[in-house]
Amino acid sequence: SCVSILSKTLKPDEPCKRIILYYHDILFDGTDLANATSAKVTNDTQLGSHFGMMVIFDDPMTEDGHLLSPPVARAQGFYFYDKKDTFNAWFAYTLIFNSSEYKGTLNIMGADPLPEKTRDLSVVGGTGDFFMARGIVTFRTDDFQGDFYFRLQMDIKLYECYKT
Amino acid sequence: SCVSILSKTLKPDEPCKRIILYYHDILFDGTDLANATSAKVTNDTQLGSHFGMMVIFDDPMTEDGHLLSPPVARAQGFYFYDKKDTFNAWFAYTLIFNSSEYKGTLNIMGADPLPEKTRDLSVVGGTGDFFMARGIVTFRTDDFQGDFYFRLQMDIKLYECYKT
Amino acid sequence: SCVSILSKTLKPDEPCKRIILYYHDILFDGTDLANATSAKVTNDTQLGSHFGMMVIFDDPMTEDGHLLSPPVARAQGFYFYDKKDTFNAWFAYTLIFNSSEYKGTLNIMGADPLPEKTRDLSVVGGTGDFFMARGIVTFRTDDFQGDFYFRLQMDIKLYECYKT
Repeated sequence: SCVSILSKTLKPDEPCKRIILYYHDILFDGTDLANATSAKVTNDTQLGSHFGMMVIFDDPMTEDGHLLSPPVARAQGFYFYDKKDTFNAWFAYTLIFNSSEYKGTLNIMGADPLPEKTRDLSVVGGTGDFFMARGIVTFRTDDFQGDFYFRLQMDIKLYECYKT
Repeated sequence: SCVSILSKTLKPDEPCKRIILYYHDILFDGTDLANATSAKVTNDTQLGSHFGMMVIFDDPMTEDGHLLSPPVARAQGFYFYDKKDTFNAWFAYTLIFNSSEYKGTLNIMGADPLPEKTRDLSVVGGTGDFFMARGIVTFRTDDFQGDFYFRLQMDIKLYECYKT
Repeated sequence: SCVSILSKTLKPDEPCKRIILYYHDILFDGTDLANATSAKVTNDTQLGSHFGMMVIFDDPMTEDGHLLSPPVARAQGFYFYDKKDTFNAWFAYTLIFNSSEYKGTLNIMGADPLPEKTRDLSVVGGTGDFFMARGIVTFRTDDFQGDFYFRLQMDIKLYECYKT
């Protein structure tokens, strides 16, 4: 019986769809309005390590690590820092694809503990070409330049894929 | 075998449950405390188009487009604006039903690019009568009156429905 | 056929995994930097009942109700108050397990209407030992001491469990 779904085996290394993209975040520094893709909306608290600082972003996603490569999606959402003794972030955002290859969105949330080499977040839903998808996104920090630019590799692995 | 769930066909036009409701957001303007259902908690940044402005809401949901119709649910959560060159929002919220017809909640998140006629967000979970539900909510702007009132049609389509 | 998944019966009292933990939130009061586990990032609005106040947290999770018991997980995320006439909150957060028993995360979101004795939120995804999990978390207020400490019992019930 189909109740076996409750204990079905999904294999982490056998996603039904896999997409690797790079996320570029250029935080507004008070002057660089033309290039900035994100802005701080709440301030650091006294707890340290940026605890309490929230950033809203509309960031380009590229297929390689080059900031100026043509974006194949946008990442729209927010992150904030939430730890006293180290940099630790939390993300919720939507990947919006509008390319020749994909049209649709993926909705993602989860913790991003920066000291870990890789961090897993959840793909909690999708629309369009990703209708009803679920999966995992693995973050890896690819570059970090001071306070105003960082780049993440996002390795998107879907384990529920639906044909419509 | 039930592993076929991984490529099962869900039909976007055949949800197992569909509910169409209207969302009314009355933003506090500094004076109208009695009627306001939402309030700004962070300010616009210099990036423009309200980029960075976040609003927390407890908004009535009605079955037709009339603000004063009896609410059948509340929408509780937040949205913020996240684009420089146009109005573009991002939502995360809970629909709380407490009517004769439904008791329970639906949890929703996703992007709301206002220039699009319709926008799809994800129903990522549910409780009570919507135990473990998943689906899609399609937003359509139904009215927009200056900075302090707008109304969205929310077309809620569930594709995973569980009997408890 | 496996399409029967669409109407499968899940039994709320028969989760495939159940974990009961206690969440301790010690809000920074402006002086107690050593003990604080959370901080306010936006202020109350004029709407009352803390409407608009958002808190970012990195809170310990313990197996019993004692604040000083060894944490078995951290809860990282945020909540805010969103109602005029009573205390009503909304949460999104990640439970990060790094114990001998579990390694991995659970991602959770939903409404927390405090006047209700119990409140159900959604587990929308998981990673590691909780790979692709879904379920429900039931909140029960276990203690509330003024403005700066409260404790919730979180009864975590997973209904989708995957072996990897």
